[in-house]
Amino acid sequence: MSNCTSSLQGSCKKKVRLGFIGLSGRGRGLLGNVLEMDDVEVPAVCEVYEDRLQMGIEQVEAAGRPRPEGYKDYRKLVKRDDIDGVVIATSWTTHVEIALAAMKAGKYVGMEVGGATSVQHCWDLVKTYEETGTPCMMLENCNYGRVEMAILNMVKKNLFGELIHCQCGYEHDLRQEVACGYENRHYRIHNYLNRNGDVYPTHGLGPMAKCLNINRGNRFVSLTSMASKSRGINEWVRKNKGEDHPLAKAKFALGDIVTTMIKCAHGETVLLIHDTSLPRPYSRAGRVQGTKGIWMEDNKSIYIEGRSPEHTWEPFEKYLEEFEHPLWKEYLSLGVRGGHGGMDYLVLRAYIESIKAKTNTPIDVYDTATWMAVTALSEESVATGSSPVAFPDFTNGKWINREPGIPSKYALDNVYENCFKTET
Amino acid sequence: MSNCTSSLQGSCKKKVRLGFIGLSGRGRGLLGNVLEMDDVEVPAVCEVYEDRLQMGIEQVEAAGRPRPEGYKDYRKLVKRDDIDGVVIATSWTTHVEIALAAMKAGKYVGMEVGGATSVQHCWDLVKTYEETGTPCMMLENCNYGRVEMAILNMVKKNLFGELIHCQCGYEHDLRQEVACGYENRHYRIHNYLNRNGDVYPTHGLGPMAKCLNINRGNRFVSLTSMASKSRGINEWVRKNKGEDHPLAKAKFALGDIVTTMIKCAHGETVLLIHDTSLPRPYSRAGRVQGTKGIWMEDNKSIYIEGRSPEHTWEPFEKYLEEFEHPLWKEYLSLGVRGGHGGMDYLVLRAYIESIKAKTNTPIDVYDTATWMAVTALSEESVATGSSPVAFPDFTNGKWINREPGIPSKYALDNVYENCFKTET
Repeated sequence: MSNCTSSLQGSCKKKVRLGFIGLSGRGRGLLGNVLEMDDVEVPAVCEVYEDRLQMGIEQVEAAGRPRPEGYKDYRKLVKRDDIDGVVIATSWTTHVEIALAAMKAGKYVGMEVGGATSVQHCWDLVKTYEETGTPCMMLENCNYGRVEMAILNMVKKNLFGELIHCQCGYEHDLRQEVACGYENRHYRIHNYLNRNGDVYPTHGLGPMAKCLNINRGNRFVSLTSMASKSRGINEWVRKNKGEDHPLAKAKFALGDIVTTMIKCAHGETVLLIHDTSLPRPYSRAGRVQGTKGIWMEDNKSIYIEGRSPEHTWEPFEKYLEEFEHPLWKEYLSLGVRGGHGGMDYLVLRAYIESIKAKTNTPIDVYDTATWMAVTALSEESVATGSSPVAFPDFTNGKWINREPGIPSKYALDNVYENCFKTET
Repeated sequence: MSNCTSSLQGSCKKKVRLGFIGLSGRGRGLLGNVLEMDDVEVPAVCEVYEDRLQMGIEQVEAAGRPRPEGYKDYRKLVKRDDIDGVVIATSWTTHVEIALAAMKAGKYVGMEVGGATSVQHCWDLVKTYEETGTPCMMLENCNYGRVEMAILNMVKKNLFGELIHCQCGYEHDLRQEVACGYENRHYRIHNYLNRNGDVYPTHGLGPMAKCLNINRGNRFVSLTSMASKSRGINEWVRKNKGEDHPLAKAKFALGDIVTTMIKCAHGETVLLIHDTSLPRPYSRAGRVQGTKGIWMEDNKSIYIEGRSPEHTWEPFEKYLEEFEHPLWKEYLSLGVRGGHGGMDYLVLRAYIESIKAKTNTPIDVYDTATWMAVTALSEESVATGSSPVAFPDFTNGKWINREPGIPSKYALDNVYENCFKTET
């Protein structure tokens, strides 16, 4: 057998050289993951804030790596001819312009999650990919979550029968993060004050999109969004920072709860919730429902006709062993590492292995554009009183007969058991 | 103290005389509840099917009551001058015409749940009530469910703070009931084959509407609905009745999952799900969320900021004792009776006590019209590609400053603790 590291790393021994753009908490978190990989080098980092830039540089050095070059202007970083890819972890609204520059410079894009500010920006990603041939991958870590991958495996093994309906969301009490956005230089505050729609759809939607074969045989055709009133952040500020704080009475554009319904070409529906301004425990609100059964995240339960006792939920745990995704089986046996329950490490490996293999990424530019577009379309729907909004076909018809994605351990369009045969 | 019966029955000793229209399983179930009440007489029953009519007549006699007069034509029953009210438990699409005739004849209407086939029908209910002064109550038993009443009590005691978002639904595997509709003379099959929208919204929506003060200070202003493809009934028929059964390939109009988003005048959103054609355990999918906390039915949990451990769900059970609705406290101490966990009995008592007191009903004609209208509006939205549809204001502006409902044990607009002081 190969050693532990190479089993998740693949057999190719060549080094991958990455530049990191954006060194906030999230950027440095991803950087920390990468610095533990012996096949990745980080010769360059970039950040507009001087203090964060220094922290990033020092983080690389502290890991025993050569001191990276530091940049304040991403345009200079992407032009270096000694890097293979750039990881973008800047504020949401700057992701796309950096990704476009990186693709044009021939650097594999690994872009943190976030929603698009316009549908045009999504088209720009697609067009630039098609012109340059440089892959662009949204680093949606939740697609590599243990539960999400088991669900994907269940779907592909037809446990739920024909899929009919999915639910998902981002339900995370972020009041403090938003309300302290100015002092912490966090971009959420700007978005919440100014935009109304599902500003952060992909943690929930990415995994569901893969279950539903979006962009490979299926596609999103329309959506409609509805936003509640906005109260949560104001109230948090009043209670925690006082009535006189400027944000106590600021008018937040973003509704506390934004609900979105999406219709698929083959008749499935997806319900998506954004819920980050009210007190609550965390959930991604997953639900997958087909002609044979249903899974729900919130009660950690599953019901499969013919297997489950009639009308009775069974613990999801009971099905996990049988349907554990082979990537997670391997990962668990090797030892889970890194942030967010281990999925950050996996999504980065997926990106890095694609660079090594010179293949497209498991989340490709069409996925990235489609998932990000939900934000802009959701804003459009909310702005027009929950009108239905047509979803662009970013594949321009290729989704109908598109060939399967690249088989690999990290593939998300299918589960390739063969890729997990024990290496000798 | 009064005896057990009169405590739930109130102090008025006069008899209430009811006619029953519709004697299917549901109608006879309600009849059974009423026959256990010593202050209710049933001099007349009505049903279009002869066998069911006889079963109803015999049921009354078997309870030791005088043999009721049997009718096939409801118009004759409602004209009797010796009855105070009529309970309507016919097929959905016939509820309104019977209710209109009953109101015109001065009989308190107790109408089983169901959705409207047109908005005009809802206006007809309102107009006829306003012309005749005869109350019309949807017998929404779920408004009297133990959990729902505890939630109402929590809302009125401000446990959740300002309400922002509610969810609810009717998630009940009814494939067999629908698929065997012809042989069992059940109307769901006709609706499922021909209509697409949320055909059964009120079990979930009724309780949420009361939490949200709909028609008394708040109102529903718009909705949009989305329907998934239809697969569940066909598949059930193929598996259970064979490929050659006519329903195996029949085209069902109703999507297996219909999702509806409703916006309220004061900015709250309500998410409503109809899910009856796929295998799953039962749920009404309740969720109530405000600035201070959240309750979810599916994980039987609650989270209240400042009370619950941070980011951690607590069992709903833990809060039930403190927030048990006083009606249920009394009911539990007296002994819960009747179908559906005891709520059928309570909703009938609510109706009967209103007749005795000659007051309006706790669910009044405006509530009835509003809740039923969701079905017609949902069909309209689905038919127009999930377009937003404006909600009629059935109160014609009265909702803005409408005076409180009648204080009683059974009130749903508020919790009147004073009505539960021990009688001596």
